[in-house]
Amino acid sequence: QNGNSYEIETSRRLLDDRIRELFYLIHRQTLSEGVKLKLESQMISLMGLSSKLENADNSEKSRATERKQIADRILSDIKRNQNPKSCKDSNVLICNLDKECGFGCQLHHVTYCAITAFATQRLLVLKKDGMNWKYSRDGWNSVFLPLSDTCKYAEAVRDETPAAFSATSTDRVVSLGIVDALPTRPAFLPQAVPTNLLRNISMVHSHPPAFFIGTVVAFLMRFNSETIDKLEKAAQQVEFSKGPIVGLQIRRTDKVGTEAAFHGLDEYMEWTEIWFKSQEKMENKVIDRRIFIASDDPTVVPEAKQKYPNYQVYGSTEIAETAQLSNRYTDASLLGVITDIYLLSKVDFLVCTFSSQVCRMGYELRQASGLDDGTKFHSLDDIYYFGGQQAHEMVAIESHKSASPLEIDLEIGDKIGIAGNHWDGYSKGTNRRTNKMGTFPSYKVVNDWRTYDFKLFV
Amino acid sequence: QNGNSYEIETSRRLLDDRIRELFYLIHRQTLSEGVKLKLESQMISLMGLSSKLENADNSEKSRATERKQIADRILSDIKRNQNPKSCKDSNVLICNLDKECGFGCQLHHVTYCAITAFATQRLLVLKKDGMNWKYSRDGWNSVFLPLSDTCKYAEAVRDETPAAFSATSTDRVVSLGIVDALPTRPAFLPQAVPTNLLRNISMVHSHPPAFFIGTVVAFLMRFNSETIDKLEKAAQQVEFSKGPIVGLQIRRTDKVGTEAAFHGLDEYMEWTEIWFKSQEKMENKVIDRRIFIASDDPTVVPEAKQKYPNYQVYGSTEIAETAQLSNRYTDASLLGVITDIYLLSKVDFLVCTFSSQVCRMGYELRQASGLDDGTKFHSLDDIYYFGGQQAHEMVAIESHKSASPLEIDLEIGDKIGIAGNHWDGYSKGTNRRTNKMGTFPSYKVVNDWRTYDFKLFV
Ligand SMILES: Nc1nc2c(ncn2[C@@H]2O[C@H](COP(=O)(O)OP(=O)(O)O)[C@@H](O)[C@H]2O)c(=O)[nH]1
Ligand SMILES: Nc1nc2c(ncn2[C@@H]2O[C@H](COP(=O)(O)OP(=O)(O)O)[C@@H](O)[C@H]2O)c(=O)[nH]1
Repeated sequence: QNGNSYEIETSRRLLDDRIRELFYLIHRQTLSEGVKLKLESQMISLMGLSSKLENADNSEKSRATERKQIADRILSDIKRNQNPKSCKDSNVLICNLDKECGFGCQLHHVTYCAITAFATQRLLVLKKDGMNWKYSRDGWNSVFLPLSDTCKYAEAVRDETPAAFSATSTDRVVSLGIVDALPTRPAFLPQAVPTNLLRNISMVHSHPPAFFIGTVVAFLMRFNSETIDKLEKAAQQVEFSKGPIVGLQIRRTDKVGTEAAFHGLDEYMEWTEIWFKSQEKMENKVIDRRIFIASDDPTVVPEAKQKYPNYQVYGSTEIAETAQLSNRYTDASLLGVITDIYLLSKVDFLVCTFSSQVCRMGYELRQASGLDDGTKFHSLDDIYYFGGQQAHEMVAIESHKSASPLEIDLEIGDKIGIAGNHWDGYSKGTNRRTNKMGTFPSYKVVNDWRTYDFKLFV
Repeated sequence: QNGNSYEIETSRRLLDDRIRELFYLIHRQTLSEGVKLKLESQMISLMGLSSKLENADNSEKSRATERKQIADRILSDIKRNQNPKSCKDSNVLICNLDKECGFGCQLHHVTYCAITAFATQRLLVLKKDGMNWKYSRDGWNSVFLPLSDTCKYAEAVRDETPAAFSATSTDRVVSLGIVDALPTRPAFLPQAVPTNLLRNISMVHSHPPAFFIGTVVAFLMRFNSETIDKLEKAAQQVEFSKGPIVGLQIRRTDKVGTEAAFHGLDEYMEWTEIWFKSQEKMENKVIDRRIFIASDDPTVVPEAKQKYPNYQVYGSTEIAETAQLSNRYTDASLLGVITDIYLLSKVDFLVCTFSSQVCRMGYELRQASGLDDGTKFHSLDDIYYFGGQQAHEMVAIESHKSASPLEIDLEIGDKIGIAGNHWDGYSKGTNRRTNKMGTFPSYKVVNDWRTYDFKLFV
C-alpha cells in the first residue's frame, strides 16, 4: 500500500485523464501553426509533469506491485475454481475453442466462457480439452497449460449430454454458445467488475474492467514451458532493458475496409512521438526512440525503418508473413500472434486500433502483469470494449448545452451510453434521459462501472 | 503531517502551477470566439480538478495546520529574540518607523529591519518605541503590541550613540537606514529563506519566501486588544462564514500613472469570475458570488454594486475616503488600512496589483494564518517581490529557442533573473549565462530560492 488515499488517487488519475483530453481538443483544433506549436508544446510538458506526479516517490512502482498482488489473488481464486476436489461431481461449463474467427476473437470467446463459468460457479472446460483448434493440430496444449491440473474434459463431462447454457440452468453440465446468440445479456458480462474488488482496483488502476478481464485472459494464456522458451527468446531480441519502447500494432489485410478503416504508419508514429516527447519532459533528458511493431502487414516494419531513421525499429517481417490470411491458421501463425501479443504486453506504451482483438489482447495481458494503470495506450479508433459487452455507461459530472445539431445536452447525473471517443475532445453517446444521441465534450463525463457479485472472488 | 512525501507535494504543486500557466497562455491568445470558449471552459474545469486534488482527503486543511505550526515556531523564535534576559546588555538594532511613505511601505521597512536584526542576532527596537509616526500621534502602540514585552527603547539603547548599521558591525547599538541606502545587499535580505526551514515550508507552501516574510509581518502586526475588537467587528460585517469570498484590492489615486498603471474594475472581476467558476467545477455546485473590496478609491464599491448585481459586494466607502492622500496620515486612515489588510488576509482568493504594498501586506499576512499555500491570488501586474530584495532568480528546466527578437534562448540549468510574469504564458528576465534580457515561456523555469543560515530559527 502506498500512502495515498482513494480520493487522492482517483482525483490524480482524473486530472491526468483530463489533461490528455485537453490535449486531444487542442491537437485537433484548426489553429495557426505558431499558436498550435505553442499550445501543444506546453500541453506535452504538462502531460510529462502529470506523469512525474504519477511516478513521484516511485509510487507507480508500488502501485504496480499492488496491481500484481490483486491480479495474483484473482488468479488464485480462479485456480481454486478450476481444481475442484471432485472432478466428476463439479458443475461444468463447456466452451468451444473453435469459434470461426481469428486468435483474438477465439480467446475472447474463451474469456467470455470463463467469466460465465466463474459467475455461475462452474468448472470451465474446453470442448475435448481444446483438441479441435484450427490454429494447431495439437490443440490448446500445444502452446498453453491446461485450464485445470486435475480435471480433463472426459472426466468432468462423463457421458452426460450437455444442456444449452442459461443463466438459471441447474444442469450439471452445460455448453455455452457464442455471445452473439444470447437472448439477454446477463449482469456478469463485461465490463462488470467483481463488486468487492472494484474499490481496491480503482485505487491503482483507471480501468477496472480491463484489469479484471485482463487477469482472466492472463489465466487462459498461461504458456507451456516450450512456448515460454520461445517467447523469452523473442523478448531478448527486442532488448526491453535498453530503455522505454512503444509498441505499435498495425492491423491491416482482411480487417481494413470491413471492420476498420486504414490507418497509415504516420498516424501511429504521431502518437508514438507525442508519448516520447512527454516522457522526455518528465525525465528531463533525451530518450532514444525505440518501437516494436506487430502487424499482419509485412511492409510496415521495412517502411518504418526507412521513414523513421531516428527510430530503432523492432519487429519481425516473418511473423507478419505468417499472419496473412492464406497462412493464418497454422502453428507458425499461432506462435507468431502469441509472440506479438506477449511482446505488446511488455512495452511501455501501446499505439494501435482497439477495433483489433489482437491489440486489445496485448492491452489486456499487460494488466495482470501490473505494468499498466490502464492509461498507457493510444487507440486510433475505438475505446476499450469487449465484444458482446453490456452497454458501457458514463455519467455526466458537468452540464452541457449543445453548440451544434450534432451535439447533445447533458445535465449533471445524466447516464450516457457511450459509443466512442473521437479523440478530439469530444465523445459520442446516447443520453438515457433524453434518448438523444450525439457528441459532447469528453471531459464532462466519467465512467460509471458496472459491478457483479461474483461469489468466486473473495 | 499529511501522508504525502516532499516529491509528491512539490510535483503536485508544480503541475497545478503549470495548469494555471497554460490557462494564461490560452486566455491571452487571439482565437475565434468558439474555439476560445471551448478551450477556456475545459481549462477552468481542469483548474477545478487540480484544486480538487489539492483538497482531496481534506489535505489542504492538514497542510494549513502544518503551515500554522511552522509559522508559530518562527514566531516563538522571534519572541525569544525580542525578550532577552538582559535588556541593557543586548545587541540592539534601531529601526525608524517613520519612513517617508505609506503604511505598507513603512511596515515593509520595519520588516526589513526585523529580518536584519534576526540575521545579525540583535534585539529589534523601534526608534523611541515608535512614538514618532505620522499615522498616529499615539505611535505604534496605538494599534500594535510593543515589539518586546521586556525591553523599552530607553533601557536597551541607554545613552549610547547608535553606530550606522553594517553587516560586520560589532557595536552594541546600531541604527538601520532605509534599504535603498545599502551599498551591497547582504545575503539575508529577502527573498532569502532560513536554510533549515526551506524544505519543511516547501512541503506545504509554494512560495517559501513570502511565507517567511509574512510570518515576520505577522509578528510586527500583532494588534492590541482595542484594535482586535474593531477588526473583529469589521470582519463580522463581511460575513466570512457565509461561503467563499474573493478579496479585491484596488489601488488608485496617487499610485496610478506614477508607480502603476490604471486597471479597471472589470479586470479584477475577470479573475474573480475565473476563480469562482473553477471553484464551482471543483465543488460541483453553484457558488454565490461574494467579494470584499479594499481601495483608496471611494467610487469602486458603488461601481461594483451597480455593474455586478449578481455579486454580493462588501467594502466600506468611508474607509476608502480615509485613504485619500489628503486624509491619509490620520488615526482613522491608519485603522482603515489595517482593517483592509486584515480583511484581505482572510479572504479565499485575492485579486490585486502586487505593485501595491497594501496588497502585498494582505497577501503576506495570510501566510502566517496558514490559510494560503501561496497560490490563492492573482496579481494584475507584478509577481510577488519585497522592495530592496536581492535578485529573484529562476532556473530553466526546459530549453527554449527564441521565436522572435523579443524572446531569449534558454538551456536547461540556465539561471534567469526574473523581471516579471506577463500572465500570458510568458515571463521576462535576464539569462545570466548569455546576459540577454527578453521573454520566454513561463512554464520552462522554476524558482530557485535563496537561503540564509539564520541562527535564530532552529
Ligand atoms: N502475428 C500477428 N498476427 C496478426 C496480427 N494482426 C492480425 N493477425 C492475425 O490475424 C488474426 C486476426 O483475428 P483476431 O485475432 O480475431 O483479431 P481482429 O480481426 O484484428 O479483431 C489474428 O488472430 C492473427 O492470426 C499481428 O499484429 N501479428
Ligand atoms: N484603507 C485603505 N487604504 C489604502 C488602500 N490603498 C492605499 N491606501 C492608503 O494609501 C497608502 C499607500 O501607501 P503604501 O501602503 O506604501 O502602498 P502602495 O503605495 O500602494 O505601495 C496606504 O498605506 C494607505 O494609507 C486601500 O485599499 N485601503
